[in-house]
Amino acid sequence: MRVGFIGLGTMGNPMARNVVNGGYDLIVYNRTASKTAPFRHMGVPTASSPADLARQSDALIFMVTGPTDLLDLLQRPQGILEGLNPGTVVINMSTVSLDATRRAAALVEAAGGRFLDAPVSGSKVPAEQATLVILVGGDPALIDQMEPLLLTMGKKVVRCGAVPAGTAMKLMINLLLGTMMVDLAEALVFGSRLGLDMEAMLETIASGAMAAPLFALKGKAIAQGDYTKHFPVDLVFKDLNLVLTEAGSLGCPLPATAACREAYNAARAMGWGDEDMAAVFKVLDRLAGR
Amino acid sequence: MRVGFIGLGTMGNPMARNVVNGGYDLIVYNRTASKTAPFRHMGVPTASSPADLARQSDALIFMVTGPTDLLDLLQRPQGILEGLNPGTVVINMSTVSLDATRRAAALVEAAGGRFLDAPVSGSKVPAEQATLVILVGGDPALIDQMEPLLLTMGKKVVRCGAVPAGTAMKLMINLLLGTMMVDLAEALVFGSRLGLDMEAMLETIASGAMAAPLFALKGKAIAQGDYTKHFPVDLVFKDLNLVLTEAGSLGCPLPATAACREAYNAARAMGWGDEDMAAVFKVLDRLAGR
Amino acid sequence: MRVGFIGLGTMGNPMARNVVNGGYDLIVYNRTASKTAPFRHMGVPTASSPADLARQSDALIFMVTGPTDLLDLLQRPQGILEGLNPGTVVINMSTVSLDATRRAAALVEAAGGRFLDAPVSGSKVPAEQATLVILVGGDPALIDQMEPLLLTMGKKVVRCGAVPAGTAMKLMINLLLGTMMVDLAEALVFGSRLGLDMEAMLETIASGAMAAPLFALKGKAIAQGDYTKHFPVDLVFKDLNLVLTEAGSLGCPLPATAACREAYNAARAMGWGDEDMAAVFKVLDRLAGR
Amino acid sequence: MRVGFIGLGTMGNPMARNVVNGGYDLIVYNRTASKTAPFRHMGVPTASSPADLARQSDALIFMVTGPTDLLDLLQRPQGILEGLNPGTVVINMSTVSLDATRRAAALVEAAGGRFLDAPVSGSKVPAEQATLVILVGGDPALIDQMEPLLLTMGKKVVRCGAVPAGTAMKLMINLLLGTMMVDLAEALVFGSRLGLDMEAMLETIASGAMAAPLFALKGKAIAQGDYTKHFPVDLVFKDLNLVLTEAGSLGCPLPATAACREAYNAARAMGWGDEDMAAVFKVLDRLAGR
Repeated sequence: MRVGFIGLGTMGNPMARNVVNGGYDLIVYNRTASKTAPFRHMGVPTASSPADLARQSDALIFMVTGPTDLLDLLQRPQGILEGLNPGTVVINMSTVSLDATRRAAALVEAAGGRFLDAPVSGSKVPAEQATLVILVGGDPALIDQMEPLLLTMGKKVVRCGAVPAGTAMKLMINLLLGTMMVDLAEALVFGSRLGLDMEAMLETIASGAMAAPLFALKGKAIAQGDYTKHFPVDLVFKDLNLVLTEAGSLGCPLPATAACREAYNAARAMGWGDEDMAAVFKVLDRLAGR
Repeated sequence: MRVGFIGLGTMGNPMARNVVNGGYDLIVYNRTASKTAPFRHMGVPTASSPADLARQSDALIFMVTGPTDLLDLLQRPQGILEGLNPGTVVINMSTVSLDATRRAAALVEAAGGRFLDAPVSGSKVPAEQATLVILVGGDPALIDQMEPLLLTMGKKVVRCGAVPAGTAMKLMINLLLGTMMVDLAEALVFGSRLGLDMEAMLETIASGAMAAPLFALKGKAIAQGDYTKHFPVDLVFKDLNLVLTEAGSLGCPLPATAACREAYNAARAMGWGDEDMAAVFKVLDRLAGR
Repeated sequence: MRVGFIGLGTMGNPMARNVVNGGYDLIVYNRTASKTAPFRHMGVPTASSPADLARQSDALIFMVTGPTDLLDLLQRPQGILEGLNPGTVVINMSTVSLDATRRAAALVEAAGGRFLDAPVSGSKVPAEQATLVILVGGDPALIDQMEPLLLTMGKKVVRCGAVPAGTAMKLMINLLLGTMMVDLAEALVFGSRLGLDMEAMLETIASGAMAAPLFALKGKAIAQGDYTKHFPVDLVFKDLNLVLTEAGSLGCPLPATAACREAYNAARAMGWGDEDMAAVFKVLDRLAGR
Repeated sequence: MRVGFIGLGTMGNPMARNVVNGGYDLIVYNRTASKTAPFRHMGVPTASSPADLARQSDALIFMVTGPTDLLDLLQRPQGILEGLNPGTVVINMSTVSLDATRRAAALVEAAGGRFLDAPVSGSKVPAEQATLVILVGGDPALIDQMEPLLLTMGKKVVRCGAVPAGTAMKLMINLLLGTMMVDLAEALVFGSRLGLDMEAMLETIASGAMAAPLFALKGKAIAQGDYTKHFPVDLVFKDLNLVLTEAGSLGCPLPATAACREAYNAARAMGWGDEDMAAVFKVLDRLAGR
């Protein structure tokens, strides 16, 4: 089986490498050609266009930045749909809206292909270490068939239901990510105003029922004042907006999530949109008068 | 060393048993005499009054329901202070306000005793299994001396700073507890409205950076509709009020915590105050139109 | 000057009548032809298409339901742009997004027309009584020229700045509308739980610095349990979403507005989306355990 | 009828003057003796103690800073209760908690007096101009009897129900005050980020259903950057805490009020607690990145 990969950014680059490491025959495409150079050095060929990529692939993986890119790369002249062979499996691993997922699936199926939505939980480091959790929506038999390929990039495949259930699951998990980060920030600002030591707080959190890997990671970053991005404020904000928009359509009030969105909004306003999401700590710290 | 224990409720009962199991010579007191019966059957003597308990103890552990009980049991006629021997260590493990902690410490020290504040993280099951995390404020040498006793009840002693740092740490950790529970509830209501399966959501949460023991426990309870209390809504609400009151004095805005307090407030209004804190799920589920 | 009017709904119908009452020569167009019947009976002619309407008009007023309608009626075959005479003034009085306003203005100007954005503050009754407040963005000289026409429909023209400042002003004022309604609902639910009489509360509010016509109107509706729509929950929710989306782009955190959005979200979830915005009272009343 | 007045601060001073202007025979008491000097110059006698004040008064008005002062001035040695003549009417016009009101009423009645709770809506300027709205709880016949006295200080007496209904009404109205101020701040920050002119926004608000005297007053202050206190942030914060505490006891969730409390909390943290409540504008303005 030959695998085409489109989108070689922060996440896509290590994911595509892991597909090669898993023994698959890879071919890549990226709009910015310089990003394909390291793959050429590894002997991985580059397609001349999305349509060309599609023609040479049995399975096609998308890891692009949003719904506009996804739909444009499918539909444009010399796009994926023009080259799609009957039966080719298109796997969208980028995080987009539910609506964009449904539209991409419909386009692919109308062109004779098959579609899975498979966004991932985990950011740069898990992408490098192939420990992503892959949230998949689609036909169960097709998921079974693609599972070995997916597991070259992650440690676990979660079957979420029919398309766009993978994307729905991703929104649910990112709601949790965005809100827990704010909780941690509020707890640490509050504790520090009470005179508690940062290390002692993190040790306490790590010892009980609230221990989560996220808190260990982000707590350490806050303690060190290191806001180098793993998952930036801007993307959390984008995801919480997707969540709140969907929740508005569904009639699902989310008061805590709504309050948290405003913390990220403030972080962006303060110029920290491209810093790690842990920068919400700085917002609350500043609000508390420092 | 003889240990006196006052307050044999849901938490105090198993904690006192674990002190005995740890090989200490125990004596107990409880206002409601029936609660001392199981200890008499184990051969543990009962004091006739708090003063009597104090007279017979080298270390005294409080596990009562709030600041009023703590201060009253110390100060009233035939109270602890009347019987306190010089040098006796009073360890308050109940969760009270910072102010009540400071006042209790001052009273004990004025009467010649020594004081530690040592509230616990963990509820009924960890109390039974002696896996509590014990958050201790006080003189480091005194903490060292009491650590073996404390470790009969818990798996870990965290040194938090001077009195009332144990209580401050407890408030910080319960801020996290109360907010994370609401986050989980919002995530699960949102996901279920998107059509996701409850088990699949819990599996996904358990697989990534947001995995916390709390979510496994409470997620299972929600999936089964079992709101038998481990830590009831009323107590979370009480603790979040303590947090927000302290935060108001400190000038420390906590917008997400404030939003979460209202979810517990609603749970109480709906008659679920004595159910497990996981009942906030039902509030959000009802708000979403069911 | 001949005036074309497009969109004869709940707001547009009385507004168009008031243009006639103001002595202007009117011509109308509506997709649903039945809505033009009462105008034909008044002797007001009906255009056969938007393009036909445009050909016969010196000024064109839009009062449609949203950005999609506005842009579609401009651009489609036989649309407004096809028939637009050089120098015709297009006045959009519908509430749309800032972006849609900018796009409509650009389309009109590219076709040789001139553009004002002029959304209104006030709902059905002020539309009937010609007491709307008209929030206008555009060239000051052009606003001066159109002011007599606008004042047939309203009591006041507010000059807001260049296009799309009228729409910006409308979003600002609707932020205030949506949040004040929730404030009133919280105050009345809280007061009623304290045992206060509804009439006494409304009298108190009406007597002091918080007296606003909105509170008199909505307070009476709540006291009578009459949620017949003047401005429905669904439209407030739509407007608060527009506000929060713009505020997200601008980096402008709005924590109270975000909390209020969720109250309208809940009202929709409970099936009250088409009732008057005062129905948020019922959400808070239910949350408080009734 | 001789009237005793206790508490000659920012509010009490002009209120006591208006009692004199209304033709009543006044006697005053104030802990800080300097505050009685202007009254001595007007020929108003000063009592030597609260008990002395009570002995010489047929009606006694309290305008003190909080529940501690109220209860202490009643109960302490040489306090009001020691000198209270049978049938003397004690009118508490200070804003305190419901509980303190109930306790003050019980103390006064046990000492043979009668009690009204009569907090006021309106701050310094209405106090000077005798245009306060007086919110009264108590026996209707007694209210009728005291109405002429009360109307020397205000323009309107609202009958709220039995004690402590006046205080309940005051909490309800201050909920509205605190939240509307935040709404205005959010609207003006949002509008200013959209490029709208402050004067144009205030004119628009003043023209429609949201026009409230509060907005005219506070809008002007914000436009001029003048945060001289009329009603300071600290007092609004205190009142919202009273509201949220009562609402917590009642089981009455107030999500918007809770969000607004945090804005005042932030204003205090930034050092603006003693500035006018309009300073919440500066919090939101800073959050929005300036």
